[in-house]
Amino acid sequence: MRRIVFVLVAVVVLPGLIASIVGGIGHAAQDAAPVFVKKIPPGYRDWKVVSVAHEAGELNDIRAVLGNDIAIKAYREGKLPFPEGAIVGRIAWSYVASEENNKIFGREQSFVAGSATDTYLQFMVKDSKKYAATGGWGYSSFDQDGKPSDEAAMTSCFPCHQAIKGRDFVFSRYTP
Amino acid sequence: MRRIVFVLVAVVVLPGLIASIVGGIGHAAQDAAPVFVKKIPPGYRDWKVVSVAHEAGELNDIRAVLGNDIAIKAYREGKLPFPEGAIVGRIAWSYVASEENNKIFGREQSFVAGSATDTYLQFMVKDSKKYAATGGWGYSSFDQDGKPSDEAAMTSCFPCHQAIKGRDFVFSRYTP
Repeated sequence: MRRIVFVLVAVVVLPGLIASIVGGIGHAAQDAAPVFVKKIPPGYRDWKVVSVAHEAGELNDIRAVLGNDIAIKAYREGKLPFPEGAIVGRIAWSYVASEENNKIFGREQSFVAGSATDTYLQFMVKDSKKYAATGGWGYSSFDQDGKPSDEAAMTSCFPCHQAIKGRDFVFSRYTP
Repeated sequence: MRRIVFVLVAVVVLPGLIASIVGGIGHAAQDAAPVFVKKIPPGYRDWKVVSVAHEAGELNDIRAVLGNDIAIKAYREGKLPFPEGAIVGRIAWSYVASEENNKIFGREQSFVAGSATDTYLQFMVKDSKKYAATGGWGYSSFDQDGKPSDEAAMTSCFPCHQAIKGRDFVFSRYTP
């Protein structure tokens, strides 16, 4: 009985597995330099704050930049380059005037975070080997429904980040 | 030898301790409704993000609103009033244009967090009994050196927060 099960597993599972490995090799060969990450890192909303920012103009968002524990430790210790496994994330919400706050304060001064934007979540994942072609960082971007941006859009990440190679390609500074 | 040490401790430490307790009682009697908190909650910089905001005008800051675990849990579950022990904090940095980012992006659009402001840290601490006179929240504010604001300045907290009694006196909404 055990032998039959083993044979069945071998017949049913192995071809798929082999196809998958071969497919993987084929994909890797075609696309020798993966630069995009397609999964949202679990638990990112619980990460610690690196800093905050406002992008005006077309983006018109207000954002929190967060880091996983590896990234935060490196930031706080001022260590560059960031170690393997570091992830820097940012959440972008629409930038909206708070009528509620302004009414209470008696001044037009308060701008708050509204709904998730079209580039709601972005992450940089440090893996020096896997993402060697883009400075050791894999880039990702997700809309308000968690859908990753298409690869064409993602090619615009590294050219800008490359300009700050001296800070290991990371724009955001840690603000204590 | 042990007895001598004990006696010495009793002589040196106890009068100070008693003075301190009596002083505390005297202070409580004078000031029956404490509304101000004079200590920065330990570990606040590791707290999770509630939201972010920009206050223009005289404040001219960009800020992260954080919560301790009790506050974050209540926010995420939409529970009001906030439970005992909840603390909502906010860090305010000066609001500055990032020449570095603007140069790289080729647009004047990027505003980032600069140095700590004169009201760098503020906290609301929930203790319904202790701070009954101010909606169950004790307020605190600290400058960039960790010095608490004087009590005269602190009397301005509750009158504004009172306007949002319906959300348990807390301005900031949680943005997922």
